[in-house]
Amino acid sequence: MSALSSPLALSLGEPAGIGPDIVLAAWLRRQELRLPPFFVTGDPACLAARAKHLGLALDIVEADPHDAAATFAAALPVVPTGPTVTATPGRPDASSGPAAQAAIDAAVALVRNGQARAIVTNPIAKSVLYANGFPFPGHTEYLAHLCGTPAPRPVMMIWSPELAVIPATIHVPITDVPRLLTVELLVETGRIAAADLIRRFGIAAPRIAVCGLNPHAGEDGTIGREDEEITRPAVDALRALGIDARGPLPADTLFHAAARRTYDVVIGAYHDQVLAPVKTLAFDTGVNVTLGLPFVRTSPDHGTAFDIAGTGRANPSSLIEAIRLADRLAGADARADAAE
Amino acid sequence: MSALSSPLALSLGEPAGIGPDIVLAAWLRRQELRLPPFFVTGDPACLAARAKHLGLALDIVEADPHDAAATFAAALPVVPTGPTVTATPGRPDASSGPAAQAAIDAAVALVRNGQARAIVTNPIAKSVLYANGFPFPGHTEYLAHLCGTPAPRPVMMIWSPELAVIPATIHVPITDVPRLLTVELLVETGRIAAADLIRRFGIAAPRIAVCGLNPHAGEDGTIGREDEEITRPAVDALRALGIDARGPLPADTLFHAAARRTYDVVIGAYHDQVLAPVKTLAFDTGVNVTLGLPFVRTSPDHGTAFDIAGTGRANPSSLIEAIRLADRLAGADARADAAE
Repeated sequence: MSALSSPLALSLGEPAGIGPDIVLAAWLRRQELRLPPFFVTGDPACLAARAKHLGLALDIVEADPHDAAATFAAALPVVPTGPTVTATPGRPDASSGPAAQAAIDAAVALVRNGQARAIVTNPIAKSVLYANGFPFPGHTEYLAHLCGTPAPRPVMMIWSPELAVIPATIHVPITDVPRLLTVELLVETGRIAAADLIRRFGIAAPRIAVCGLNPHAGEDGTIGREDEEITRPAVDALRALGIDARGPLPADTLFHAAARRTYDVVIGAYHDQVLAPVKTLAFDTGVNVTLGLPFVRTSPDHGTAFDIAGTGRANPSSLIEAIRLADRLAGADARADAAE
Repeated sequence: MSALSSPLALSLGEPAGIGPDIVLAAWLRRQELRLPPFFVTGDPACLAARAKHLGLALDIVEADPHDAAATFAAALPVVPTGPTVTATPGRPDASSGPAAQAAIDAAVALVRNGQARAIVTNPIAKSVLYANGFPFPGHTEYLAHLCGTPAPRPVMMIWSPELAVIPATIHVPITDVPRLLTVELLVETGRIAAADLIRRFGIAAPRIAVCGLNPHAGEDGTIGREDEEITRPAVDALRALGIDARGPLPADTLFHAAARRTYDVVIGAYHDQVLAPVKTLAFDTGVNVTLGLPFVRTSPDHGTAFDIAGTGRANPSSLIEAIRLADRLAGADARADAAE
C-alpha cells in the first residue's frame, strides 16, 4: 500500500478529554460527509467505554494499519497503544499522560513509515503531561522532536477557508514579545510557510502579509521602532529570497473581506493579534496545521474541554475539518513526492 | 429651540482629506437614508470647491445654527469658521491645521450651548496639526481639553451593531503596554463605559467583558502575571462598584457570534487586540464614539485618506453610521437630562 492510499492516523489525545467523543462523532458521520479512511492510535477500550457512556452503537475493532482502510466502512479501526486508560471523562489520572504520549508516538511512527498518509492529533492537556515529566512546551515541539536530529523547526498555522494565520510568537507573555520577535524568526517563519503553501497547499506563489508589532504597524517608526528595525528588514529579506511578502502592515485593517483577498496567509507578531481575527471568522471550523514537518499534521483548534467530555455536547466540526485538510494536504504531498 | 431638536454639528476635519467628500455624499443621501438635520462647521468655500471638483450639484449656504434645521432639506448649511482654506484635495498646507482646529472649536462651542445636539467630527491629520504646534496627542484629547478644567477623561469606543470595543491603551508601542496597563486605568475605563452605556445607549445593566493582556488571559498566571495582578483585581473592583464586569477573558475566543451575545462591550488591553476583531466584522461601518464627555461625540472610524480625497472614491458609510449613532445617543442623552 502506498502512502497515497494509506489511511489517516488520528491520535486519541488526552483520554479524559473530548478527543474520544469527537473521534466517535466523526466516524459516525463518515458516509454523510464522505470522510477519507482513518484509524485511531490509542486504547480501544477507552473508545469503547466512551461509546457506551454516550449510548452510541458502533463497532470498534483492533486493527493493523494495513487493514484499517478496508475496516473503516463498517467499524472504527483502532491501532492499540498502551497503557490501559483508567481515566474517566473529565477526570484525567496517572494513565492520561502515558496514554496520550503513546498514541502520538505510534501515529508518528506510522506516518513516517508510510502506513499512514498524515496524522491528525486530538487535544492533549499540557498540565497533565507536565506532571508526567513531559519536557516539551507542547504537542508541536514534541512532534518535531520525534522527527530526529536536527529537529525541524515547526510553524503553527491556523487555517480556515476564510483566513489562514501564523503567530510568530505563541504562548508567551506580551512583555516578552518585543524581545522574541527577531528578523531571523520572521524570516524562518516566512520561509517555512512559503515552502509548505507551495508544496502542500498548491499555491504557486504564496502571498504573505506580515503584521507590524505595534498599532498602525508603528506609523513609520513613530509608535515604536520595532517595525522599522525588525519587521521591515524581515520582509525585505523574504523578498530577496523570492518570496512575495508584504509589510509591515497594520493588523487592524488586515482582516476584512476585501483585505483577505490580497494574501494567502498572515504572519502576526503574537498570539492574540492573529488568533482573535481568525476565531472571529471561523470559530468552530479552524484547523491547526503544523508546517515544516516531514509529514502532514493537522489538529482541531481547541483544547481537551474536560468540562464537557462524555456529555455528548462536544462539537466535532474542527476535527472533521482537520481530517479533510489532512487528506487534501497529504494528497498534494504525495504528488509532489512522485514528481520529484 | 431645545437641544433635543437642534441639528447635529459636523466639523469639517482636515480640509485636504476626504472629510469634504463624505460630508457632501452624506448630505446628498439625506432623504433616501432619512438622516437627521446637520450643519457643517468649516469654510463654506472649501466645501463648494470640492463639490465643483467632484461635479456635484448642490446648494451650500452659510447658515446660523438656529436656521440650519430648516435649511437642511434644500441646502447643506455651513456655519462658517475661519481661516480661508487654500489646501487642495490630497495636499494639506498651512491653512489646514488652523481650519481643522477652528471647525472643532466651533462645533464644541455650539454643542455646549445647546445649538447643536451632538458633534460628529471628520478626520484630522495629526502630523499636519503637530506641524502647526498642536499640543494634544489627538482629536479626543483636544475635545476633552475644550470641556474645561478639570478636563474629563475621554474613553474611545469603536461601536458597530455587531460589536463594541474599547482599547484601554491606544497608540502606544506594545513594549509600553504592560507598564501602562494599571488597575486604575481599567477601573476608570470600565466606570466611564458603564455610565455612558446606561445613559446614552439605554442599556440598564451593561455587561463588560475584559480581555486578558496575555494569550489565554495568562492561563492562571502561567503566561505572565499581569492578568492575575492587574486585570483580575480591576474586574473585581468594577464588580464591587456594582458593574457587571467579567474577566480576564482570553481574547481569541471572545469575538465569535455566540460569545458576542454574552456582553455589551469588550475592554481590551491594547489596540490590535480589539480593533482587529471589530474591523474584521465591521470594516466600513464602525463608528468611533468618545465616552466620558459632557456631550455626545462620534466620528467615522477612518483617517483623512489623502490619496483618494477629491476622487469620488471615498466611502461615506462610516460617517453616515456616525451621524445615525450621534442622533440616537443625543436623543437618549436629552431624555436623561429631562428626567433628572
